[in-house]
Amino acid sequence: MKLTTDARGVYVIAPTPFHPDGRIDDSSIDRMTDFFLGAGVTGMTVLGQLGEAPKMEHGESVGIVKRVIARAKVPVIVGVSAPGFAAMCALTLDAMAAGAAGVMIAPPNTLRTDDSILQYYRQASEAIGTDVPFVIQDYPLTFSVQMTAGVIRRIVAENPACQVLKHEDWPGLDKISALRAFERDGSMRHISILVGNNALFLDFEMERGADGANTGYCFPDMLVDVVRLAAAGERDAAHDLFDAHLPLIRYEQQPGPGLAVRKYVMMRRGIIASDTLRKPGAALSGVARAEVDYLLSRIARVDPRARV
Amino acid sequence: MKLTTDARGVYVIAPTPFHPDGRIDDSSIDRMTDFFLGAGVTGMTVLGQLGEAPKMEHGESVGIVKRVIARAKVPVIVGVSAPGFAAMCALTLDAMAAGAAGVMIAPPNTLRTDDSILQYYRQASEAIGTDVPFVIQDYPLTFSVQMTAGVIRRIVAENPACQVLKHEDWPGLDKISALRAFERDGSMRHISILVGNNALFLDFEMERGADGANTGYCFPDMLVDVVRLAAAGERDAAHDLFDAHLPLIRYEQQPGPGLAVRKYVMMRRGIIASDTLRKPGAALSGVARAEVDYLLSRIARVDPRARV
Amino acid sequence: MKLTTDARGVYVIAPTPFHPDGRIDDSSIDRMTDFFLGAGVTGMTVLGQLGEAPKMEHGESVGIVKRVIARAKVPVIVGVSAPGFAAMCALTLDAMAAGAAGVMIAPPNTLRTDDSILQYYRQASEAIGTDVPFVIQDYPLTFSVQMTAGVIRRIVAENPACQVLKHEDWPGLDKISALRAFERDGSMRHISILVGNNALFLDFEMERGADGANTGYCFPDMLVDVVRLAAAGERDAAHDLFDAHLPLIRYEQQPGPGLAVRKYVMMRRGIIASDTLRKPGAALSGVARAEVDYLLSRIARVDPRARV
Amino acid sequence: MKLTTDARGVYVIAPTPFHPDGRIDDSSIDRMTDFFLGAGVTGMTVLGQLGEAPKMEHGESVGIVKRVIARAKVPVIVGVSAPGFAAMCALTLDAMAAGAAGVMIAPPNTLRTDDSILQYYRQASEAIGTDVPFVIQDYPLTFSVQMTAGVIRRIVAENPACQVLKHEDWPGLDKISALRAFERDGSMRHISILVGNNALFLDFEMERGADGANTGYCFPDMLVDVVRLAAAGERDAAHDLFDAHLPLIRYEQQPGPGLAVRKYVMMRRGIIASDTLRKPGAALSGVARAEVDYLLSRIARVDPRARV
Repeated sequence: MKLTTDARGVYVIAPTPFHPDGRIDDSSIDRMTDFFLGAGVTGMTVLGQLGEAPKMEHGESVGIVKRVIARAKVPVIVGVSAPGFAAMCALTLDAMAAGAAGVMIAPPNTLRTDDSILQYYRQASEAIGTDVPFVIQDYPLTFSVQMTAGVIRRIVAENPACQVLKHEDWPGLDKISALRAFERDGSMRHISILVGNNALFLDFEMERGADGANTGYCFPDMLVDVVRLAAAGERDAAHDLFDAHLPLIRYEQQPGPGLAVRKYVMMRRGIIASDTLRKPGAALSGVARAEVDYLLSRIARVDPRARV
Repeated sequence: MKLTTDARGVYVIAPTPFHPDGRIDDSSIDRMTDFFLGAGVTGMTVLGQLGEAPKMEHGESVGIVKRVIARAKVPVIVGVSAPGFAAMCALTLDAMAAGAAGVMIAPPNTLRTDDSILQYYRQASEAIGTDVPFVIQDYPLTFSVQMTAGVIRRIVAENPACQVLKHEDWPGLDKISALRAFERDGSMRHISILVGNNALFLDFEMERGADGANTGYCFPDMLVDVVRLAAAGERDAAHDLFDAHLPLIRYEQQPGPGLAVRKYVMMRRGIIASDTLRKPGAALSGVARAEVDYLLSRIARVDPRARV
Repeated sequence: MKLTTDARGVYVIAPTPFHPDGRIDDSSIDRMTDFFLGAGVTGMTVLGQLGEAPKMEHGESVGIVKRVIARAKVPVIVGVSAPGFAAMCALTLDAMAAGAAGVMIAPPNTLRTDDSILQYYRQASEAIGTDVPFVIQDYPLTFSVQMTAGVIRRIVAENPACQVLKHEDWPGLDKISALRAFERDGSMRHISILVGNNALFLDFEMERGADGANTGYCFPDMLVDVVRLAAAGERDAAHDLFDAHLPLIRYEQQPGPGLAVRKYVMMRRGIIASDTLRKPGAALSGVARAEVDYLLSRIARVDPRARV
Repeated sequence: MKLTTDARGVYVIAPTPFHPDGRIDDSSIDRMTDFFLGAGVTGMTVLGQLGEAPKMEHGESVGIVKRVIARAKVPVIVGVSAPGFAAMCALTLDAMAAGAAGVMIAPPNTLRTDDSILQYYRQASEAIGTDVPFVIQDYPLTFSVQMTAGVIRRIVAENPACQVLKHEDWPGLDKISALRAFERDGSMRHISILVGNNALFLDFEMERGADGANTGYCFPDMLVDVVRLAAAGERDAAHDLFDAHLPLIRYEQQPGPGLAVRKYVMMRRGIIASDTLRKPGAALSGVARAEVDYLLSRIARVDPRARV
């Protein structure tokens, strides 16, 4: 079940559940995986930035990958971004051997020119093997690397293994339109575009031509519904549901505390046992928790899933 | 009418209206000023980042300052951020002579240590004159300078002329709580905190202790209402109104196209004649305008002001 | 006397002399200009980064430009980099009216993609007038903008007014070779390449194809000699002279204190009256002055000009 | 043989020798280690930034550590900088078990405030164990993190395990003076200061109070001599030797090609078998090699070790 350019729907970004003492919580991983499947996701991504990947040892990373793949009935993408190609290769090898559908690669935050970005993806694909399907992670807010639509077109042209763009540029709507226009004018082969950035613009991104979401909001079931409604052309219904969640989406999209918000709500929903983050990573203050509770109570007026 | 730590309500960030050929549009400035006053703002800030200040010559800047002050019946703050103190002093001198209430100063984006930030504000206040009330602009997303609550406390302690914090850190809620805690424990004198960042967190920022807003959303009249409702403790009503606008607030908060959105809506509302930006600064694409129109139509179901 | 692609030799970057109280020191400007002419420079650049340009008001800038042009018998380039095109145009207009040979433009430090750099130079040249000869300032260490050789080729192709590259990338030797190879293979028209970065690699940069220097070391007379020797193919002699100064070149190239070193030595040489920098800009510590004195005494064993 | 604040002399930064196909070259590691010992180094640091540490897998890193420690008769420091504490702990554990003297920790390049730097070192020391001696790596040019002397004083105060500052700030002379002044006024306990940045300012850094060098120039034997001469107060002799090498030191200090220069010279000196770098990392161009050869021939006029 290799990743292809047909990827669509919701590839949820999975957080990594920890016990309060920082050890990985396997039974929460299982419960979370089951929840995602029940919510209708079409794929999962583990060890992304918000999966706290950089805080894991190699052995822990491989353990998570194997556990999730064994249970999930959907394609699993593995984040393998690393400061060097040796560690990237090692994790890719183990992940693909375990049955991963493909890997996700973010650029190191030192890249500054178009050429250096192109060289990086060329060398990375060669390093991990050009038969390994990969996802470009385009997230300038976190990685400080800016790729124009033209640069993405060149990455796609140079790397047959590139299947998906995890689009999370901000602003990013016109970038999706530009990429789809490249496909229409024949200057770029088709790729799947799945959007991230905590779904902050999912409503319009779907209308601009995205194939779905590749992000990790605490209500992935809502993401599934919005993607389905948008794909079906039910514009008002898609926006109504999305807008009901937007105050919390915005709250969860904050860099830093955002992941703590996500884990807190998933804990309240019974999906994971603890909202612990590994260091460095602060806990949510009492007042922040109360604010999230208030937002949940407001969403619950429209979406009963928020009654937690 | 000098700026003091009593500033509260909405100090609206005024855009600079241009004719389609890029000249400053004086009659739109007048109409906009009248609109702001009618909307109930308690103050105005001209020549901020979103007033396209860096695109203006000194003479143009002074012209805008004089025109607005002559017409406004509320305190006017002037953005005087500049690469050097000579230009900053020159504009401050002219602005204060014209009757400005105070000035706003953002840090240059090269500052990296706490000490360098402190030195900058100390030297800036000395340069412009310690009798000139000033606003700290704390906007890391745009200026790449991060000030902790502790650093702000030290700026306030060292500079008696500091009256207001334009708070637009992100995430920023806990920073407001920390600053108000400093006031309560006696380690910092009281200052006014007015929030920016396109009001994206205005709802909770008011609850954390902000005195109002110092930003420029295309419905400043809505900001006035939310600040009033929040100050009156009408929590649900404040959030209901805020949430109705949040999809557009988010859309307008995008760096780059955001200002074009703001001007487009203000043009549609009849406040300014043209949505022109000076170069560099792109026009809104047709599809983006249609998205904004759709958002307006959705807001209009709750807030009749959006029927434009 | 307009700037052309024939520029060669040493276009010295002139510091701005101040009185100890921060006022511009006109008689030192005159003495310095005469000194430069006597030293054999082929051109001068005023209001560069190390001319403390951002610390000047428009009126002051114009005053300096006029004074230097009136006295210099060589082409004068004026740094017009500014946060916006309005200020850049205003200074360009006044400078060209006063008889400047051309202007120098550095990119704003927010540019991150090849396209954004190209757009910037296109818009800047249109804004100041495509008949105004300009110099690209390529100084990533200070401006955080990285231009590949390919990007420079595109700037040159798009902008007929571009005459000179102030090359100060680091590392930068292979960039000069790449640009000269572009000229040889016909993919780029010839431009003048003058090197900066405090001349730290002037020795090899000349051998790679540079036409001269456009920098401001405290012994511009040495730069003139090295450029002459290198152009004449006297390799060992060029390196011998250069190496004798390298310990001080390195010392002066430090960002921050470097300019204070330069002014201190020029003061000791009797070229300017005071080594004052405008704020922000610290004075040299006593121990640093003694270190510079020691370096001068060592240079003096080889180059009698260092006996000051 | 644990690292203490008594560290002095030259702790050479060891490159990692590779075979032309990218595999680690064990016999070159041995030959290099023997060479360093013969050259009189007092310690070695492996897996630093210029040891290409981020390009190694965990298993490879541990192999290098064990091999070097088994052979070296001097203290060995291991670079353990990593994106997260889990990987940092894992390597520290293995390194200390193998007999390392201590570890070196660089800050992640996202830190922007004094408090965030302090928190990072506190959490890192707790994570690896407060009994593990560590070195602060202060290299803003590469890591984009700026620590004032005051911040270093606080790190030292909060972390008893901190023994050494690898000082490579630029400019950095006054920072050494400031730290030594803190020791004299009793506000900071004594630490060892070893300087890096390719030894570009080693001459004056020794005079300002450094205890030695912790860097990796291709003539570490020269560094040993300069440190010895400077410590003995033979100022002119120290500078004479240093200045003879400065043209090459400067050439080798270029970010990027610098490491290729270092390995090329070490290959020519017979210390390692190949000058291969792991990807990403370019080979030296032919013209660059010829420039290095020319510099060697010039040094050889003064220092016979350069006859290679």
